[in-house]
Amino acid sequence: VNWALGHRATESSAVCGRCCPQDCAGATAEVFDLVVQLSSALKTKPHAVDFGTVFTDHMLTVEWSVTEGWQAPFIRPFTNLSLHPACSSLHYGIQLFEGFKVYRGDDSRLRLFRPMLNMSRMADSAKRACLPAFDQTELLECIRRLVEVDQDWVPQSDSASLYIRPTFISTEPSLGVKRPGRALLYVILCQAGSYFNSEADAISLWADPKYTRAWKGGTGDCKMGGNYGCSLFAQYEADDYGCQQVLWLYGQDHQITEAGTMNIFLHWINQDGEEELATPPLDGIILPGITRRSILELTRKWGEFKVTERYLTMSQLCCALKQQRVKEMFGSGTACMICPIGRIVYLGENLHIPCRDKQSVTSRLTKELTDIQVGGCPHIC
Amino acid sequence: VNWALGHRATESSAVCGRCCPQDCAGATAEVFDLVVQLSSALKTKPHAVDFGTVFTDHMLTVEWSVTEGWQAPFIRPFTNLSLHPACSSLHYGIQLFEGFKVYRGDDSRLRLFRPMLNMSRMADSAKRACLPAFDQTELLECIRRLVEVDQDWVPQSDSASLYIRPTFISTEPSLGVKRPGRALLYVILCQAGSYFNSEADAISLWADPKYTRAWKGGTGDCKMGGNYGCSLFAQYEADDYGCQQVLWLYGQDHQITEAGTMNIFLHWINQDGEEELATPPLDGIILPGITRRSILELTRKWGEFKVTERYLTMSQLCCALKQQRVKEMFGSGTACMICPIGRIVYLGENLHIPCRDKQSVTSRLTKELTDIQVGGCPHIC
Repeated sequence: VNWALGHRATESSAVCGRCCPQDCAGATAEVFDLVVQLSSALKTKPHAVDFGTVFTDHMLTVEWSVTEGWQAPFIRPFTNLSLHPACSSLHYGIQLFEGFKVYRGDDSRLRLFRPMLNMSRMADSAKRACLPAFDQTELLECIRRLVEVDQDWVPQSDSASLYIRPTFISTEPSLGVKRPGRALLYVILCQAGSYFNSEADAISLWADPKYTRAWKGGTGDCKMGGNYGCSLFAQYEADDYGCQQVLWLYGQDHQITEAGTMNIFLHWINQDGEEELATPPLDGIILPGITRRSILELTRKWGEFKVTERYLTMSQLCCALKQQRVKEMFGSGTACMICPIGRIVYLGENLHIPCRDKQSVTSRLTKELTDIQVGGCPHIC
Repeated sequence: VNWALGHRATESSAVCGRCCPQDCAGATAEVFDLVVQLSSALKTKPHAVDFGTVFTDHMLTVEWSVTEGWQAPFIRPFTNLSLHPACSSLHYGIQLFEGFKVYRGDDSRLRLFRPMLNMSRMADSAKRACLPAFDQTELLECIRRLVEVDQDWVPQSDSASLYIRPTFISTEPSLGVKRPGRALLYVILCQAGSYFNSEADAISLWADPKYTRAWKGGTGDCKMGGNYGCSLFAQYEADDYGCQQVLWLYGQDHQITEAGTMNIFLHWINQDGEEELATPPLDGIILPGITRRSILELTRKWGEFKVTERYLTMSQLCCALKQQRVKEMFGSGTACMICPIGRIVYLGENLHIPCRDKQSVTSRLTKELTDIQVGGCPHIC
């Protein structure tokens, strides 16, 4: 397989040319005990589909038990899981996931975007969920093998990619609320398509303090399943207000935290008259997004304006909108990458957010990140 | 099967003699489309086991889809579930459960304790989780049939019972964070045994504000899986402090909310010099426990002291302990029923909670609730 070996899209940093060996998707670490069983009947590949509905031909599974430790990783035909009805992933949400993408560039080579950051965040989530530690480098190598097996599924496109979903669940078959004695780590691959159905350029958000996504002392900074399931109810109330996603607020001062399942950025002239790109700090209730981190690194490298991790409240935003100090707002995440925000419904008011133009930070970031991801960027380490 | 028809243990109220027909486990509503497939190989029944580790021979499954609605309920041999690896119960915690018990009295008859309250709470959880509504009476009737099929598993004992675990999960096989288009409701039965391993009479709690179980605007008042998985990490830190469970605090003033997976009660002389049984109010972060409700109803009927749903803070508790105004504290829940609290570790201090004696509220409640549950109480409606 033609991986872009050592290409900067696989590095630990989105901007510098230095390549850490353990972060390089081109590394050829051996996974001696990996078992590969190929499917005898390959699926046809539909052209354009919704995000996360069509899966490739194979999957990776690795079982763990407290008595026997990690078993040999297994690439096998994609199939249903057989789970004990009492397993605590289904009762107590002892589960977590990651999400990243494999891109095929104009040079036909495959690239992962900073995958070791996903491995590391997955390890953090596992610790919080009381699931066992795993070898991050070995897991990434197994994922690369899985992608190789299903490489024909990676589209040649600037706008499409193959989405990788590592999942880690408890398979403890008993009902006491306790640390799992058995677990299953598995990885599935699916067509990414476009995450949002709407053709509209900028999305609309509903901001209401009555629902809270995450809170201090909870799990909002991990990718545990419970963070997502509890968000659905508010999501459908956002629908009722004609909005596509929820803008999650926090605390008495209605701090801006996240938008749907995305981190959020505000490009504005701040209260001190400085041009600033701001996003909420990682204080325990914010998911440490990899796109978020890459945006901070890229824009700091530009050095054109202040780049800050800081608290932002709805009253600060409303005031800035009235004084025409807001340049743009956007969400960031693996699924959507950069998603401009056009409108916020807040306490019965319709707040119109200025739209991006060709010179906007949103447009520049989309182009620079895409260039890195698909390899159009000339910087090779 | 010899159900205790119309017995008060099956009623909507734990104390009054009035029986609401829909609350009566003795009701004989027909479930016309229920399919029963019996197991050809019955398991042996181990004598004494940990809570939730040994399951009976059969289970109930009912499938739902947005296109076809609810399918026929199915009692079948206990077996693993076959789940799509992308199903959103495993990725986004779209899952919930209930827990109640079936008791066999000295008269050999089977009794459920206020089961319609579980059905109703399950419906509330389903709404919050964006899972579909279901017919509560029909589900309870199906559960009764399941218990009948496995009735030999219900022990003849005051201290043991068969635990019923209804579970409701999304089986939506796609990765978008959205309302499930497919779901599975299933019910399994297991030996209850004793929930806590320790032989000690009173449990110890670790109270630290750095972890939060639930928060306003979240799902702490529902039995969604995510509420439990996120509690494990703190549970093991409690272990490190030599405590059995976490005492969950909330807010700047360290409000007392729940203990482990139990509601909590304080029997004390309050700040105004009144004898009071107090438990935190159902303000969105407290699980509306059925044992909690029954305790409030029973003690209000006694009329011997003030019974209050009110906020309690750690500083109020510490002050009352110093002034010897605390009579006792206990947790309540289906698994343990009434569990006395003997010690709390809080900000480096070891708080000793007075222990119960034979005349204590803890002892009286344990006896009265057990009498109702196993049918020793003479009041038949």
